[in-house]
Amino acid sequence: MTATASTDARTAARELITPERLRDFFAPRSIALVGASETSGWARFIVAASSAVGYTGPLLPVHPRHEVIFGRPAFRTLRDLDEPADLAFILAPTEAVQTVIEDAAAAGVRNAVVLASGYREAGTGGVELEDSLIASAASHGIVLLGPNCLGFLNTGAKAAPYALTVPLPLTAGPVGIALQSGALASVLLAFARAHAIGVSTVASLGNEAMITTADMLDYLVADEQTKVICMFLEEIGDPAAFSAAAQRADAVGKPIVALKAGASQAGQQAALAHTGAVAGDDAVVDAALRQLNIIRVASVEELLTTAALLGYDRHPAGRRMGVLTASGGACDIIADRASARGIEIPPFSAETTQVIAAQLPSFATARNPLDVTGYVLANARTTTLTAIDRALDVAVEDPGLDFVLFTGFTVPDIRPPDEAAAGLLEARVDWIAARMASAPIPVIPIAPTCIDVTGYARDLLGQHDIRLLGGIELAVQAIDNALRWQDGRGQVRLLPGQPPALVGTVTAWTESTARDLLTSAGIPVVPGRLAGSADQAAEAARALGGPVALKISSAQVSHKSDIGGVLLNVSGDAAVRAGYEQVVAAAAGHLGTGHQGGNEVLVTSMRTGGIEVLAGVTRDPGFGPVLAVGLGGIWVELLRDTSLRVLPADASQVRQMLDELRALPVLQGARGVVAADLDVLADVIARIGALALSIPGLQVLEVNPLWICGDQVEALDVLVVTDRSNDSEYREKAGTEPAT
Amino acid sequence: MTATASTDARTAARELITPERLRDFFAPRSIALVGASETSGWARFIVAASSAVGYTGPLLPVHPRHEVIFGRPAFRTLRDLDEPADLAFILAPTEAVQTVIEDAAAAGVRNAVVLASGYREAGTGGVELEDSLIASAASHGIVLLGPNCLGFLNTGAKAAPYALTVPLPLTAGPVGIALQSGALASVLLAFARAHAIGVSTVASLGNEAMITTADMLDYLVADEQTKVICMFLEEIGDPAAFSAAAQRADAVGKPIVALKAGASQAGQQAALAHTGAVAGDDAVVDAALRQLNIIRVASVEELLTTAALLGYDRHPAGRRMGVLTASGGACDIIADRASARGIEIPPFSAETTQVIAAQLPSFATARNPLDVTGYVLANARTTTLTAIDRALDVAVEDPGLDFVLFTGFTVPDIRPPDEAAAGLLEARVDWIAARMASAPIPVIPIAPTCIDVTGYARDLLGQHDIRLLGGIELAVQAIDNALRWQDGRGQVRLLPGQPPALVGTVTAWTESTARDLLTSAGIPVVPGRLAGSADQAAEAARALGGPVALKISSAQVSHKSDIGGVLLNVSGDAAVRAGYEQVVAAAAGHLGTGHQGGNEVLVTSMRTGGIEVLAGVTRDPGFGPVLAVGLGGIWVELLRDTSLRVLPADASQVRQMLDELRALPVLQGARGVVAADLDVLADVIARIGALALSIPGLQVLEVNPLWICGDQVEALDVLVVTDRSNDSEYREKAGTEPAT
Repeated sequence: MTATASTDARTAARELITPERLRDFFAPRSIALVGASETSGWARFIVAASSAVGYTGPLLPVHPRHEVIFGRPAFRTLRDLDEPADLAFILAPTEAVQTVIEDAAAAGVRNAVVLASGYREAGTGGVELEDSLIASAASHGIVLLGPNCLGFLNTGAKAAPYALTVPLPLTAGPVGIALQSGALASVLLAFARAHAIGVSTVASLGNEAMITTADMLDYLVADEQTKVICMFLEEIGDPAAFSAAAQRADAVGKPIVALKAGASQAGQQAALAHTGAVAGDDAVVDAALRQLNIIRVASVEELLTTAALLGYDRHPAGRRMGVLTASGGACDIIADRASARGIEIPPFSAETTQVIAAQLPSFATARNPLDVTGYVLANARTTTLTAIDRALDVAVEDPGLDFVLFTGFTVPDIRPPDEAAAGLLEARVDWIAARMASAPIPVIPIAPTCIDVTGYARDLLGQHDIRLLGGIELAVQAIDNALRWQDGRGQVRLLPGQPPALVGTVTAWTESTARDLLTSAGIPVVPGRLAGSADQAAEAARALGGPVALKISSAQVSHKSDIGGVLLNVSGDAAVRAGYEQVVAAAAGHLGTGHQGGNEVLVTSMRTGGIEVLAGVTRDPGFGPVLAVGLGGIWVELLRDTSLRVLPADASQVRQMLDELRALPVLQGARGVVAADLDVLADVIARIGALALSIPGLQVLEVNPLWICGDQVEALDVLVVTDRSNDSEYREKAGTEPAT
Repeated sequence: MTATASTDARTAARELITPERLRDFFAPRSIALVGASETSGWARFIVAASSAVGYTGPLLPVHPRHEVIFGRPAFRTLRDLDEPADLAFILAPTEAVQTVIEDAAAAGVRNAVVLASGYREAGTGGVELEDSLIASAASHGIVLLGPNCLGFLNTGAKAAPYALTVPLPLTAGPVGIALQSGALASVLLAFARAHAIGVSTVASLGNEAMITTADMLDYLVADEQTKVICMFLEEIGDPAAFSAAAQRADAVGKPIVALKAGASQAGQQAALAHTGAVAGDDAVVDAALRQLNIIRVASVEELLTTAALLGYDRHPAGRRMGVLTASGGACDIIADRASARGIEIPPFSAETTQVIAAQLPSFATARNPLDVTGYVLANARTTTLTAIDRALDVAVEDPGLDFVLFTGFTVPDIRPPDEAAAGLLEARVDWIAARMASAPIPVIPIAPTCIDVTGYARDLLGQHDIRLLGGIELAVQAIDNALRWQDGRGQVRLLPGQPPALVGTVTAWTESTARDLLTSAGIPVVPGRLAGSADQAAEAARALGGPVALKISSAQVSHKSDIGGVLLNVSGDAAVRAGYEQVVAAAAGHLGTGHQGGNEVLVTSMRTGGIEVLAGVTRDPGFGPVLAVGLGGIWVELLRDTSLRVLPADASQVRQMLDELRALPVLQGARGVVAADLDVLADVIARIGALALSIPGLQVLEVNPLWICGDQVEALDVLVVTDRSNDSEYREKAGTEPAT
């Protein structure tokens, strides 16, 4: 299949994927298991998963040789079905899949899950096979999940064509899950079970040949049962579609929480090996996810705990936390973790303090974080409510708090054999649940550590729709994540994405051409002149006044300083003339004779007393142009103190980037320098970003240093590297001739 | 009670605490419950805890009014016992405790746990009460745990005078636990149960009136069952005793893992409120714990997971990790987390790769980290060993690996009803356990997330003495912790500690006196002269040659720059004279007329071209003198890039401190400056530390900047602040007169 045919097939496939088709796809009422046999673990898993979700429709075995499978009569092919199944789960080996698709088409089956591997993830031959598969399915109007996937389960529609273990009991609930790694689904479901976190639709996306991650996001955004979306990502895919889906999620207030692999180089290699994905620079992914208000987490535990908070409970709107515990040690640990995440524990109001103090033994202190002390637990057997409950009752009314963290649930796994004790406990949980519901601020119940909620505790809390977040560490992470999601709402913009530029044919512009480009875009450039001789250099220096910089001007020298092609702070006629000869000689030594432009030297004014900033645009293979902003010198070299944004970014976004720098105090004048006007600086940097976006084939546009002193900004040095194939476009765009 | 009487009582108490007494204390064979009643939750907890550990000795209720408690006949007082109990657990209210101690003495009871609160943690009155209690107990030879504590449990000796819930089943094992917060014990035990982590002795230390944290450390170091020690700390207490115990633990190879509260200011306040402890600066605590090779963790989960790794398994000796999984997603996450912690995942050897490749389906890749793919799981029903087991078999022989992380245990909670399947599974676990035991490198089995190990899985793995670390995140933390402990062995030195200096009577020395002090200790100081007039200043400048610095020399001006008392880079007679007048005028403006020394100006040479370092000693209220080393300027101001050590620290330790700085590349010449000779620098800084230790009452000794250029080091400015009450000692020590 040619590249064009492949593109046509994918375009036809895209047209099939509508919200209605996806809704139908994920809610089949009859499922054919093609290639199922009794010895197939996959088929057994599907049968068990179907039972786990309460699937009541037919599971129709289809096999060319077996008569009866799992006690059900088998069909030879899909064509033999009495009526078309809603979905075919294709367990057949890779080489048989194409035929099954043809059968499905003939039988009127419109949806298929393809388990087989050996497609795109297996290299060149696999890519062709996958293209054929899509072309075939699309031509028949068949929507396909996979290949190389394990299917999905949908607790709302009670369907589970899902070929992996489902830990029991499976709880239905608000958490939608999309995974680019199939086997990880069982890991997530096991943790969800342990904490009674309910799921809506869980899908393994495989190679995303037709249904992509962005499609799945769209489906989950539209799905009424889903209140929060969890993703495991190995690659982002198409940034435009992905960001559009994220924008829709933001618009309707459905948080997206993502565990994105590849934070480490090692992680990138692992991702490369098993999905064939090309992972970009992780810092860019980090920036992009933040721009899309997608909460990035580091573990499955954090992923699901955050989802549990955002999916079920009223989550907090502010950072002022009340803490109610029966352990001083827990108070200490909560305070430490909260402080590390910028969550405040303000004093209780006078009224709250007074009411709580009346409930406590004399040696306990009525303060936030509150330790009601173990005495309260030891004496809890005779009354429904304990001191921690009374504290809850009043703390939720405290106007100085945004939410209350509550560790007061100590429900055993087994119902207390003493009926009176059980009755007291149940009455207490009733009361707390009702108080949580009536409270003006959210109450977040947590367990002190990440342990399972099982047996009686699971049942009793479940009846009251109460979920304990699993442990202080994870709960505080989840709360911080929820607050960050809240803060980021309403600011999600589309990331257009751009095809990667060609590699191997890049060209650096001469600095003087690059300076003209900046000037034409309204970006201030330090005064300078091109000199073709020592005389011209001296004349330029006189005209500029004050000490000057001398820089060789050749497109063939990209690292001018490294070859001795730059002299700074040169004063006086003689020195300028000597300097001119020196940098020309250095370039000649580097390039040999006969090179172009090797006798041209750029003479520019020196600037002192301000601050030097770096503003650079590079091209990420996935996201396209990315803007990096930082202070020059050690800040970038040693401290990697840069802020990134996938472009476009307007001046207000650049202003936020500056605020994120550790070096911000330097810009604000901390080192005795003139404070920078950050709005002016942000405006100029935003122009640099916009300019970069306007140049087709741009590889690098780096202004370093960009000098700022108060509200005066000038580009002191600029590097432009482009894909040479677009030369004519540059000329039109920049109105200048690129060198070479 | 007078302060002396109190000190005498504590000294007497200290003499009682011997290793033998502690061993007896924690292994009572008969226990009296004094003040127990059927309505006391505490007493019920003790009965239940005793049953949980399999205690078979007598629990003897003692109560002034009840006849029968828990079906056992009660004694009126301890004096009425037939024979002395090994231990009295005193549940009586605070006001009755003293009488019970007298009774215990009369009855020959030698050990007591005191539950009551209202002592030191309750303020001044409580301190007196606690002193009386100790004096009384010590005078009768009674060793006492608490007050304000919940007791202890000892699974080896099967004794549990422990007044809190014990989650069942309780597993005996290698983890000893000492807690400064009582109620937290149940939290730890619940997590330990969830992961089948076995404990030896668990003690709640309360106010540590007699048995201190250091005593408990000593006990656990001596205890044969204990292989690793976990602590929850609110304060360190006596650094000398604590560090001596840590040194003994290090010597015998018992790791100490500590969750120390107070990392946040908020945390410090919480600690203050409920234990009355005075927490020092957390960065100092952090440094001190590292010096003692105590692994500091951030959560209860990390504490116990690290202990499980160190207590049971052969833990790794190096950072090269093999990873075996059945999920590509798990591979990715493990790689990311490992990379964040500096754990390597090197390629397998050619032989390992070859053997593994033969086990895998064609679409899977034989690489480290290894994903055997879900196909292997789906087809696992018919053979004992799967591809991941075969991979384990060969990977443990790979010479390029230090250990193997293994996620291949997927044991269900309930035994498979199919007997053949159960048989295969059990044979497989047998084989893996045997292979782990015979492997030349440690195999660390983990669960993909932090979920409980229960039922059949708990039993089957327990029979093979296999413990799954709970989740990728915690497992990788634990491995890094174990490696850091390994790296830190054999370097633990005593921290002497020093009483806090008096506050409110401190004095800053004049810089010239302080310079003399440095010189007398062999620390190079930039050349300089004191000038009492403009003429003298000009003469001094001429003698020194080159530009000079002029600094007002007065003990009454501690921040010379802030009042305009410093001029830098002054050249030429006229400028020096004018400069002299200027700084004197600035000081006069600040101090008014008639102050001492206000016309003295220190004239020193200027230094350029090198690097400015800060080396300062301050006094921590708990640990005494602490050395801070960092680069000057932004590094300290904005980046807080300092390394700390509790003194003493020799030159090799200071060298390590330099290596820890983020700014290290600057010292190594990264910014185009002359690289510093780090050994020379470390030597000078070590001398500064030693000098600080030698000065009684020292509050601050700060050399800032300490200038270094190659191997040339000079103190450019020095500040000494001391407790004025020791003036005569300074004079002897420094051979100079401090000003004022």
